[in-house]
Amino acid sequence: MREPNTQSGWVRTLALTPPSLKNNTADADRLIEGLKRKISADSIRIDLELIQPLSEFLRKHAYRVRCVVFKDLDGYTLVEILSPDDAQPVAGLALDIGTTTVVMKLVDLQSQAILGQAAFTNPQIQIGPDVLTRIHYSEMKEGLFELKGLLIEAINKNLETLCRACGFKKERIFIISAAGNTTMTHFFLGLSPRYLIREPYIPVINRIPLLFSEKIGIRIHPAGRVFVFPNIGSYFGGDLFAGILYSGMHEKDGVSLLVDVGTNAEVVLGNRDWLMACAGAAGPALEGGVTRMGMIAGPGVIDRISIDPITKKIRIRTIENQPPRGICGSGLIDLAAQLFRSGMIDIQGKWVRSACSKYLKKRGEEMHFVLVPAQEAADGVDLTLTQADLDSLIRSKAAMYTILETLAQTVGVSLEDIASFYVAGAFGSIIDPESAIGIGLLPDLPRDRFHVLGNSAIEGAVQALFSRESIDQVAKIQDQTTYLELNVNQDFMNRFSAAKFIPHTDLSRFPSVKAGPPFRIDPEIPRNGIS
Amino acid sequence: MREPNTQSGWVRTLALTPPSLKNNTADADRLIEGLKRKISADSIRIDLELIQPLSEFLRKHAYRVRCVVFKDLDGYTLVEILSPDDAQPVAGLALDIGTTTVVMKLVDLQSQAILGQAAFTNPQIQIGPDVLTRIHYSEMKEGLFELKGLLIEAINKNLETLCRACGFKKERIFIISAAGNTTMTHFFLGLSPRYLIREPYIPVINRIPLLFSEKIGIRIHPAGRVFVFPNIGSYFGGDLFAGILYSGMHEKDGVSLLVDVGTNAEVVLGNRDWLMACAGAAGPALEGGVTRMGMIAGPGVIDRISIDPITKKIRIRTIENQPPRGICGSGLIDLAAQLFRSGMIDIQGKWVRSACSKYLKKRGEEMHFVLVPAQEAADGVDLTLTQADLDSLIRSKAAMYTILETLAQTVGVSLEDIASFYVAGAFGSIIDPESAIGIGLLPDLPRDRFHVLGNSAIEGAVQALFSRESIDQVAKIQDQTTYLELNVNQDFMNRFSAAKFIPHTDLSRFPSVKAGPPFRIDPEIPRNGIS
Repeated sequence: MREPNTQSGWVRTLALTPPSLKNNTADADRLIEGLKRKISADSIRIDLELIQPLSEFLRKHAYRVRCVVFKDLDGYTLVEILSPDDAQPVAGLALDIGTTTVVMKLVDLQSQAILGQAAFTNPQIQIGPDVLTRIHYSEMKEGLFELKGLLIEAINKNLETLCRACGFKKERIFIISAAGNTTMTHFFLGLSPRYLIREPYIPVINRIPLLFSEKIGIRIHPAGRVFVFPNIGSYFGGDLFAGILYSGMHEKDGVSLLVDVGTNAEVVLGNRDWLMACAGAAGPALEGGVTRMGMIAGPGVIDRISIDPITKKIRIRTIENQPPRGICGSGLIDLAAQLFRSGMIDIQGKWVRSACSKYLKKRGEEMHFVLVPAQEAADGVDLTLTQADLDSLIRSKAAMYTILETLAQTVGVSLEDIASFYVAGAFGSIIDPESAIGIGLLPDLPRDRFHVLGNSAIEGAVQALFSRESIDQVAKIQDQTTYLELNVNQDFMNRFSAAKFIPHTDLSRFPSVKAGPPFRIDPEIPRNGIS
Repeated sequence: MREPNTQSGWVRTLALTPPSLKNNTADADRLIEGLKRKISADSIRIDLELIQPLSEFLRKHAYRVRCVVFKDLDGYTLVEILSPDDAQPVAGLALDIGTTTVVMKLVDLQSQAILGQAAFTNPQIQIGPDVLTRIHYSEMKEGLFELKGLLIEAINKNLETLCRACGFKKERIFIISAAGNTTMTHFFLGLSPRYLIREPYIPVINRIPLLFSEKIGIRIHPAGRVFVFPNIGSYFGGDLFAGILYSGMHEKDGVSLLVDVGTNAEVVLGNRDWLMACAGAAGPALEGGVTRMGMIAGPGVIDRISIDPITKKIRIRTIENQPPRGICGSGLIDLAAQLFRSGMIDIQGKWVRSACSKYLKKRGEEMHFVLVPAQEAADGVDLTLTQADLDSLIRSKAAMYTILETLAQTVGVSLEDIASFYVAGAFGSIIDPESAIGIGLLPDLPRDRFHVLGNSAIEGAVQALFSRESIDQVAKIQDQTTYLELNVNQDFMNRFSAAKFIPHTDLSRFPSVKAGPPFRIDPEIPRNGIS
């Protein structure tokens, strides 16, 4: 989101004054001093392995060198010294270590070109799909070792494949920038996440020093270093940090809100002077994890729905236009919004039998809403939704809204005053803001204030590879971020109860919903519905 | 030379506030923050190996820990975290890496007690006794590797023996502080000394970062670190730095002069505000390396001589009272002073035949002065001295005096204004100041201004193990030291010529010599003749 600045990058060419009787500084000191001047650094660390061949190297190249430097929160490190004639790209690797998916981008540190990218399933899923199962597993003998190994080996394997596809040597990767939630960061570093889930919820480390990739086990250049985005706490990790960095909200005058919707709602509110972060369980419904037909976005998953308010006819869109086999979070939000809009559910989210009788079927004691009949479904069984599924969605959206409201209220900002509203995460990219506002999940702001960041974790990680200012900004973000521990008191519960209506008990907060959104004929709206 | 201060040491016990919901900093961050407050550090580096077991460790010990920290010129490092109940000593190792002898002292970092010490011959001597031979050898295939290996393995072996003798585990040594001349420092670090001896005489590095002992190959605690005293240049190394530190001259108001007499005369002049260093070839005569009977101090070596000015009878003292087998530098200086005092050599250092005829024997074309006849000598051959030997000594002493004079003149200080005159090195401990002044090697200052430092390199290295202020002082010393490249111009040569007389052409500079020193009946004066 910021203009690349090659003058502040990690690869610098230096032409040092060769030594003379009048200027007889030692070789390493000469190099470090020259580099310090070039990049305005107070000090630069250098390793013995770089010092040992230095004198011959400098003389061979007439005191001209290309240096790969890197900066962490504690200062600069000289990573490698290259020949001035070395024409090969000097690369960095950005990593988004997600609970479900790991994304990697290989970048040229000088041209800032993306050399290649890949995404793969986090193989820890075989231990457990969710963070909690994996944390419990990690407490068993060798469990942590196994979980770390699965992740690191998958990164190595996929990196190998990616490099081969790009015709690139992995030894030309010098820097890794990694962002993950606190638990994934712990696994990545081989740290026990045991105390993340036990009161008072303490990470092993938040502010992570620059590490040798060798110590983590990732095979790149032997002197390669890894920068890991810091955590703020157990429920607010480096992925959010990277998201803040990418959004640029920490540099703006106006107040912005960044929200990453998932099983946890992770929210940051603030501007250039302060940032307040908060995380709370919003419920898995928003990720499509709760209904029997709910699933993570993938081929055949319903992600858009519209309902004709007159005929009550339902139109669906599936990913890759495959026969429907489930519904993801954005589809569920669409469904709820459209059901409400069509008068098929009431403001409490309960079925209006008269309006949706043709879709309701009794199964045992429960009424099921048949979204897709068996004959149209991929697996030949009805895709249905129960009142309990809807209730769960309503609780999730109410929790999310209440978290936003509580955070805003804590700092004395009204939700309407938010100048920029950033929606992060894969889920954020496919959510329809009209539907999200329609059910009262997101506040009813002018639509142009919403900005979809996409995978802001990987983009923030890429940004850290492009300039040292980004690393300074991470330090700044860490310094000025306060974590608000959600206090689930009576006030919170009152706000939560008020938010458990569609869109809210206080309709004045949702003027555009009150007016009613336009009926959509065609659910094929662009994926990035939010501008 | 300074009072130990346990409050500024490297081992600190911390009682951290255990985490709570209201104070939920991560464990590593909590530890680092607590330690930063305790030792007033801006930042402290920590390694992944210390982070990985930290959460369990802190909980096991109720957030009480003993930390071993260390500081190099770039900042603090957390070396190890120990149990608060750990009662074993936490040790450091001071190393003086001499060209001839390596000295080690094992110290308790808390009580500051010396746990043990050892000295052994630098095994590189088998390659060559002098630095130059070794440098040339290091340029051959595997030569550097071999020289480094000899040194490191000897340190390991002797350390093993020392630890066994003290009943101490080498894994309880956490920090090494090493001082050596620039060449020895290069060998110690596996750096090629090739360019030290080629114009413009450039070391690979002067300011050496804190290193893992593992990388150097010294077997102590696996996370042990090595601090190496910096060099100023090819001819002014870390041993001198350690000497300055030990002398305390960099903290005094008055101007001090520190001199390390050897093959090279290494000299520092200065006070708390400035330091000027200089090194020059003083000639090997001062180390006993030039005469055929000259040798390094050891059993049977003559180190004190007196001559009765009336009878011309010569009395000698040998080390350990063994039969004489050679003469060392201090003996030679005594001999020249006593010969001059007795009228047996003139002010140009030439034999006065009439006065010493009974000692002179013609051998081939040359006259030999028989100091010890064959029947009294250990090896059954005459120990003799030629005019050429004496000339060489005179040139050496003249060079030394000229270097002192030039350095003083460069900064506008008169030699008489020097408030403290420190004599460093093993040689300095046995030299008789009366004799040294008597031949004009050292300036004729009141005797109480002379201070023998003994092995100031090892003492300075020990001091760096006892307080972090010492490390700050090394940085300060490095910042304020200017190296004066000796310009052997006409002025220098004029001063040198004037100094080639005993004690000097300008006798007014040596009033006490003019008056004549008392005749010594008994050469058994105390070893540390200079107070």
